[in-house]
Amino acid sequence: MEETSVSSILFMNSVFSKRRAVVRKNLAERGVDALVVNQAANRYYLSGFSGEDGVLVVSRDGTFLVSDGRFTTQAKEEAPGVRVVLQKGGLYEAAGKLLRSRGYRRIGYDPDSLTVADFAGMRRAAGRKRAWQRASGVVEGLRARKEPSELAEIRQAAVLAGEVLERTLKLLRPGVRETEIAAEIEYQMRRRGAAGPSFPPIVAFGERSALPHARPTRRKLRRNELVVLDLGAILAHYCSDITRTVFVGNAPRRVRRWYQAVLEAQGAAISAAKAGVECGEIDGAARKVLTGHGLGRYFVHSTGHGLGLEIHEAPRVARGQKQRVLPGSVITIEPGIYVPGVGGIRIEDDVAIHEASTEVLTRIPREFTEL
Amino acid sequence: MEETSVSSILFMNSVFSKRRAVVRKNLAERGVDALVVNQAANRYYLSGFSGEDGVLVVSRDGTFLVSDGRFTTQAKEEAPGVRVVLQKGGLYEAAGKLLRSRGYRRIGYDPDSLTVADFAGMRRAAGRKRAWQRASGVVEGLRARKEPSELAEIRQAAVLAGEVLERTLKLLRPGVRETEIAAEIEYQMRRRGAAGPSFPPIVAFGERSALPHARPTRRKLRRNELVVLDLGAILAHYCSDITRTVFVGNAPRRVRRWYQAVLEAQGAAISAAKAGVECGEIDGAARKVLTGHGLGRYFVHSTGHGLGLEIHEAPRVARGQKQRVLPGSVITIEPGIYVPGVGGIRIEDDVAIHEASTEVLTRIPREFTEL
Repeated sequence: MEETSVSSILFMNSVFSKRRAVVRKNLAERGVDALVVNQAANRYYLSGFSGEDGVLVVSRDGTFLVSDGRFTTQAKEEAPGVRVVLQKGGLYEAAGKLLRSRGYRRIGYDPDSLTVADFAGMRRAAGRKRAWQRASGVVEGLRARKEPSELAEIRQAAVLAGEVLERTLKLLRPGVRETEIAAEIEYQMRRRGAAGPSFPPIVAFGERSALPHARPTRRKLRRNELVVLDLGAILAHYCSDITRTVFVGNAPRRVRRWYQAVLEAQGAAISAAKAGVECGEIDGAARKVLTGHGLGRYFVHSTGHGLGLEIHEAPRVARGQKQRVLPGSVITIEPGIYVPGVGGIRIEDDVAIHEASTEVLTRIPREFTEL
Repeated sequence: MEETSVSSILFMNSVFSKRRAVVRKNLAERGVDALVVNQAANRYYLSGFSGEDGVLVVSRDGTFLVSDGRFTTQAKEEAPGVRVVLQKGGLYEAAGKLLRSRGYRRIGYDPDSLTVADFAGMRRAAGRKRAWQRASGVVEGLRARKEPSELAEIRQAAVLAGEVLERTLKLLRPGVRETEIAAEIEYQMRRRGAAGPSFPPIVAFGERSALPHARPTRRKLRRNELVVLDLGAILAHYCSDITRTVFVGNAPRRVRRWYQAVLEAQGAAISAAKAGVECGEIDGAARKVLTGHGLGRYFVHSTGHGLGLEIHEAPRVARGQKQRVLPGSVITIEPGIYVPGVGGIRIEDDVAIHEASTEVLTRIPREFTEL
């Protein structure tokens, strides 16, 4: 058993069952009998089950988790309010049979996470006389507005990531390898209680920093180079995400100028991130600053993304996005510029949107740093 | 730049382009103009591109990689034989537009990895007059027979995982936490040059070992407990996977008996794993031994799985599977028993099937060990 008190299990169970009650109400309004939930974070959000495989069915008359023998003991422990159904044969065939045996007619499914083959297999097993209704984003919509207990988890994960990043900066000496730094990052996270990294850390030296998603290599750090560190931790299921760029040595003027432009762009986007604002406007605030500095063409990605049980979740903070941030939204703000063959600069923080304020969750300094 | 010589880049490019030539021949035989490859390992296998996002299109008249601005520099570096197409709008819309502009009529797609929504978006953008043909497993089929250079990579990844496991055993003392052991495992992997773990390590103490897929918790090890360690490393893109179970303290008689039964089952499955044998027979060899010991009901998962660019790939070594292992197959053999509330025992090794022999790639001892 985990070192979890009985009272905290009871508390969490009431959290999961409350969320299911909201989903059930939503389904009733749409005239849907049952919702098939196969995406891992959604499954956890509604049940507490953290295994990698399984199909959750939330219906008007109960909740079922179809899974295989590897997970039945775990499922019963983690999700006591849910009926665990042991699959025979394929997972989606078993889910289809359950839907059939319960006699659900109108079934909601998630086209964004079900594969073409799994959907076909489930439909076949569920038999005729069933109406299948696309139900994209039902659970993601709930997840996009964090509950106070979720915010508290993300806040802790963000603080942890910042601590690890600050500690890692001390290891940046000429001769150290990207892979060594990445190893230290993951090790320090786990030592501080993280379940693991929320994505493989990005450690990019010199001209490799121009690759926004560089994987660590055995390349050694040299003097007078840019270093991009992008990392996040999972703490009690919730993710954080932070990036800092530093210069090891004495930075040339243009690097300083680029850094100040990215910092200014990030500040503009954070200022724009207020409850009720469209995500596209937040992106636009960063983009406008970089374009003003003649660097717009080097900003090759979007400004940010939602953060929670997943490292990338709703909303997308990108050009033209109409979705609005609301109290309870948690997003990253991470403009960057990437000059091929030369290097890149990115600064990223996590922010939580409140009714009348915006809280920066990652609290370590952002000023230009030469090591 | 990675520390990669020009000659090794040229060598790898010819590897990728040879694989594409095989796919192209396969497509021509089926009368398919272009194959849409969106699954990450397949994309890498055919192009060398290792970014997380992108759609590869292998056609009769060239190969294209549709991706976004985060990956264009990386794609050009990693996949020089491929034309990189910068997406505008959604990835699958961009892929659909490419298919349309090239005028492909008959298009192969992978129902096992395309989501219902992405497939619909791509079809819409590709316009009418196109015939869509399911092409499951085309690339997976090639990947299932490893080339000698791939085997060499997996062998190294397997040795690395074994070294890390042996070293980790020395840290098992009463009072240590599961999360601390997991942190050490990942750290030691990276220090030995791994790109990372091939899956989050499983570290399960005492009754938690009865959960085949336990996640590490803060639980402390006590005297007289079972410990299951299941870990794998990614080395130069290829995965390994190994499990050992040990007893910290003096094991009761029944635990020794159980261990011997699992060890015997594993040995039987390894002996059965010969070129030309059906996977179901390999699974059956392990299952028969455990059933003979009255433990069949505690063996709640299948005997193994293919291993390569992915930690789980073809073939499945499970009950009733007709697929045959062939020279070049690499599979895990990992029977286990799980007694709820008491504990579990699993022993796992990676084996490569050759024409006239079976090579065990993970070479550390399997005998029952009390620490």
